[in-house]
Amino acid sequence: MRNDQLAELGQQLRVDAVRAANAAQSGHPTSSMSAADLGAVLLANHLRYDFAQPDHPGNDRLILSKGHASPLLYAMYRAAGVIDDEELLTFRRLGSRMEGHPTPRLPWVDVATGSLGQGLPVGVGMALAGKRLDQIPYRVWVLSGDSEMAEGSVWEAVEHAAYEHLDNVTLIIDVNRLGQRGPTRHEWDLDAYARRLHAFGWHTIEIDGHDVGAIDSAFAEAESTLQKPTAIIARTHKGRGVHDVDDREGKHGKPLPNAEKAIEELGGPRFITVDVAAPPAARVLYGSRGGRAEMPAYDVGTSVATRDAFGDALAALGSVRPEVVALDGEVADSTRTAAFAKEHPDRFFECYIAEQQLVAAAVGMRTRGYIPFASTFAAFLTRAYDFVRMAAVSHAPINLVGSHAGVAIGEDGPSQMGLEDLAMFRAVYGSTVLYPCDANQTARLVEAMADLPGIGYLRTSRGETPVLYGPDEDFPVGGSRVLRSGDQDRVTVVAAGVTVHEALRAADLLEAQGIGVRVIDLYSVKPVDAATLQEAAEATGCLMTVEDHRPQGGIGDAVASALSDGRPLPRLIRLGVQNMPGSATSAEQLHLSGIDAESIAAAVQLLVEEAVVR
Amino acid sequence: MRNDQLAELGQQLRVDAVRAANAAQSGHPTSSMSAADLGAVLLANHLRYDFAQPDHPGNDRLILSKGHASPLLYAMYRAAGVIDDEELLTFRRLGSRMEGHPTPRLPWVDVATGSLGQGLPVGVGMALAGKRLDQIPYRVWVLSGDSEMAEGSVWEAVEHAAYEHLDNVTLIIDVNRLGQRGPTRHEWDLDAYARRLHAFGWHTIEIDGHDVGAIDSAFAEAESTLQKPTAIIARTHKGRGVHDVDDREGKHGKPLPNAEKAIEELGGPRFITVDVAAPPAARVLYGSRGGRAEMPAYDVGTSVATRDAFGDALAALGSVRPEVVALDGEVADSTRTAAFAKEHPDRFFECYIAEQQLVAAAVGMRTRGYIPFASTFAAFLTRAYDFVRMAAVSHAPINLVGSHAGVAIGEDGPSQMGLEDLAMFRAVYGSTVLYPCDANQTARLVEAMADLPGIGYLRTSRGETPVLYGPDEDFPVGGSRVLRSGDQDRVTVVAAGVTVHEALRAADLLEAQGIGVRVIDLYSVKPVDAATLQEAAEATGCLMTVEDHRPQGGIGDAVASALSDGRPLPRLIRLGVQNMPGSATSAEQLHLSGIDAESIAAAVQLLVEEAVVR
Repeated sequence: MRNDQLAELGQQLRVDAVRAANAAQSGHPTSSMSAADLGAVLLANHLRYDFAQPDHPGNDRLILSKGHASPLLYAMYRAAGVIDDEELLTFRRLGSRMEGHPTPRLPWVDVATGSLGQGLPVGVGMALAGKRLDQIPYRVWVLSGDSEMAEGSVWEAVEHAAYEHLDNVTLIIDVNRLGQRGPTRHEWDLDAYARRLHAFGWHTIEIDGHDVGAIDSAFAEAESTLQKPTAIIARTHKGRGVHDVDDREGKHGKPLPNAEKAIEELGGPRFITVDVAAPPAARVLYGSRGGRAEMPAYDVGTSVATRDAFGDALAALGSVRPEVVALDGEVADSTRTAAFAKEHPDRFFECYIAEQQLVAAAVGMRTRGYIPFASTFAAFLTRAYDFVRMAAVSHAPINLVGSHAGVAIGEDGPSQMGLEDLAMFRAVYGSTVLYPCDANQTARLVEAMADLPGIGYLRTSRGETPVLYGPDEDFPVGGSRVLRSGDQDRVTVVAAGVTVHEALRAADLLEAQGIGVRVIDLYSVKPVDAATLQEAAEATGCLMTVEDHRPQGGIGDAVASALSDGRPLPRLIRLGVQNMPGSATSAEQLHLSGIDAESIAAAVQLLVEEAVVR
Repeated sequence: MRNDQLAELGQQLRVDAVRAANAAQSGHPTSSMSAADLGAVLLANHLRYDFAQPDHPGNDRLILSKGHASPLLYAMYRAAGVIDDEELLTFRRLGSRMEGHPTPRLPWVDVATGSLGQGLPVGVGMALAGKRLDQIPYRVWVLSGDSEMAEGSVWEAVEHAAYEHLDNVTLIIDVNRLGQRGPTRHEWDLDAYARRLHAFGWHTIEIDGHDVGAIDSAFAEAESTLQKPTAIIARTHKGRGVHDVDDREGKHGKPLPNAEKAIEELGGPRFITVDVAAPPAARVLYGSRGGRAEMPAYDVGTSVATRDAFGDALAALGSVRPEVVALDGEVADSTRTAAFAKEHPDRFFECYIAEQQLVAAAVGMRTRGYIPFASTFAAFLTRAYDFVRMAAVSHAPINLVGSHAGVAIGEDGPSQMGLEDLAMFRAVYGSTVLYPCDANQTARLVEAMADLPGIGYLRTSRGETPVLYGPDEDFPVGGSRVLRSGDQDRVTVVAAGVTVHEALRAADLLEAQGIGVRVIDLYSVKPVDAATLQEAAEATGCLMTVEDHRPQGGIGDAVASALSDGRPLPRLIRLGVQNMPGSATSAEQLHLSGIDAESIAAAVQLLVEEAVVR
């Protein structure tokens, strides 16, 4: 498209953004208007995208990281002829695909945005897939705001992209100078951004973001720049083109005061349609080799850490599922993804100590069809909670594995202990939360995780625990195992992970005193096996949960929720980590937190003595 | 101290680190050895610290951001004469203050470290307090590893420090080239770090981190560099001084294979004691003006958003409590901390869109005696979960305020909705979780938050809600309010925030049908008012929780946990946000998520019809 046409297209996008926000009486037209020329040039002259085939592997990816500027994106879709004017004007209405912030309800949106500073991190994951997995020359275009450059996650991604020489990712920064509540730190100091990006190894281009010719050249330069990613730093005006809002404070996130006048000032509605360039032919390389993975098998009675079993199982899974990839936060030796790295180095991604980028890269790869397992210490996944939350909004089923769960890790102390992870992951929409106690169980669950419909979380333990189950046993997601039961059981102890072993030992101690207890291994914390719990509740009348986790949000809450369906409830008692641990051995920690065998046995004895249980 | 003495002191610190790890048979001696010379020079010639008065306001602050190198810190304490050899060798043992990673159990440790990339962010908060609040010329020294420079949080802090011209903070990067599982991204490329830091506006000095003279000069240069923070980038050897581990891979986080030989190679134990320089006289400026805050008052029956009441209340609180400070993530107009900014601009800190830094800066200020309230959208506090978790480990009682809670925000969609925040904050050790439904209640709770012993969280709502309570009513933390009750109540509806108003409306709808329900306003989600809930359970036999939050980890779980003490339980039913919301109005959202008055009434009717309740 010629420059004069591009300028017209830019105006069309502005007008449409104004119209959409006016119809909704909310939204962010001014943030859309600043980037309209950038969007116009990208759509008309650079993006290679088959809108009829959003899954075309050769398609470029476009991420609107400044998701609040959704009216711009939707205006671009109208210009591309894939939504009509009527749909555009359903912006922000119930049932409309034109949501306040873009989500994958629209087939051309790969990932939801709206939490700032996530577009580039996820885009880097896509670009990494393009280079190292797909080997398809698609380009990832990320349109970002200037305010969001303050997010550390952006700099994790900046570092990652440069380190991996991702010349297939282009970051476009819409420097409109004004954030939500006032001027940004650097306002129109384009050099401030360029200096930083350049120092990290990026190619940078500074332009007037309303000069379509300059934009066109910059995009072309980005496309031809090799071995490094390019950032285009564009000076723009928020609300560009309408005098009453152009570069004015206090105009963020509101429809224009006088939309009719504004549309007139912008030259009225236009009906330009863009013939977006088709992507080159491409095909996905991987294809399942089929067959069931030869999962590792462990002998009952031996001692194996579940983290070890996870590493072995992931490596085995990778051998039959070429779409399985592993991402590490520089702790692969601890999480045991080192085993995967050794067998499948081409599908192992070192993300260094940058947990937000670790999860974001996984999301990016997921959008390209891969099945990512991203691992670090359970405690450090808290760093990436916003990315996990947004992955759920994006319907991107990634798997996360947190090792070093609970006080059982021992001497390293509270900073390294995952004690809030179950709460965090249970609250995520559509998540599955698994917490195995045994090596063979771990292997089976890892296998199942590859095909989960939502976010999967596996909690592994540092120390060795006895192998309880045979290698051929099944552990369906949503199931549980009754490990001990008898007619005279007076309490049911519900445990998972390390506390299963404590519960079994407690059962032995109590049996010696003539007190029978049922023991349930609740390896699937979400979904939870309500039927088995209800049966145990009826049979024993009292459930005691024991967890190496804070008393809130974990196994105790999961069990209580399974019973909250209006039926009469059993008595419930919870044991969890109430203290702030210091350094101590694993056994000491479990004892001090009141979740070891002796504590469980004592708690049951107390119930029996006080005749709370029959 | 002279250079030859400094070198000897460095060797002493190495020997002590080796000895401590050997006694524990775990820990990180090699990571301590790389930074030993840096620690020696700092302690002997630059740190100004009165160990007898850790609360001395003039004390420099020292943060060991690479917390795993705790043996080095403890060795420095021994050299300073404040711990003895015996205590040093209790490293990592139960009950010892020599924890695996430093915590404030030691009076000279301000904040716990061990989750990497947190030292500088917190240090910037301290430095900001020094410049803008205390106006005391203490220096903040942050000793950081090289691996942790990959954390985005570090770059949020780097940006923050430079932007605020914090020449009172010095970052010392121990570039020992080796991370946990292998070489770091930049290994010994000191320029890579210097370029990045310089681009962000820092003064940088590259040195040989084992040349005590160079270290000494660099520290002096940092002390005399004005208007910008200084980073000292030191090339070091991990395991320096012991041939078997010096700059070798695979030696991370393990005691030395042959400690005796290593100690000999290092020249044996030494008993140098350092006379650490005293800080200059200083006094804290603030002092409570006393008197009770004139909190804002709202008329019953008017409509006010709780976020507005929060903003007003915080501003009022600030007028009588000069130690109250407010921190913003560039959304002060939305969270309403703008009201505080207007009245107390000197105590308002704009952290821009960098939520980790927002929380970290609050922690830093807390260590200097201030009472921080850090606010952003509830959804975006997920970004800072690791910092919140670590603040609890640090026993740093900061207050966090999350606005725009739940689906009730309306059209903006799921990316902006806080739906996991209650789960996240409930699981934090020692936290208080408050969720008011009314403006006067909000004001009272804000007042109470200033004196909470742990992490405080306040959840506010975007939309206006009716004022239910008078301005003089009390709302103790841990309390609740019974808003409706009668002899014939068949169900108790437990609600908080927006759902209180839905519950009241449901009660009206049901009353018209002759069905009585009790309504409880559970404004204190943690601690929770177990007595009132138990009383309601006994009286009505059935509790129904209704929350604008995911069904996991929030109000439903809190209520269930209050009843899990072994007594017979009532029937429990939970209503929460099970769907993935799109754009819609607030009323539509509440209805679609099944938590509006009609949904509550329908659920109660069903229970009555099915005779589940009496």
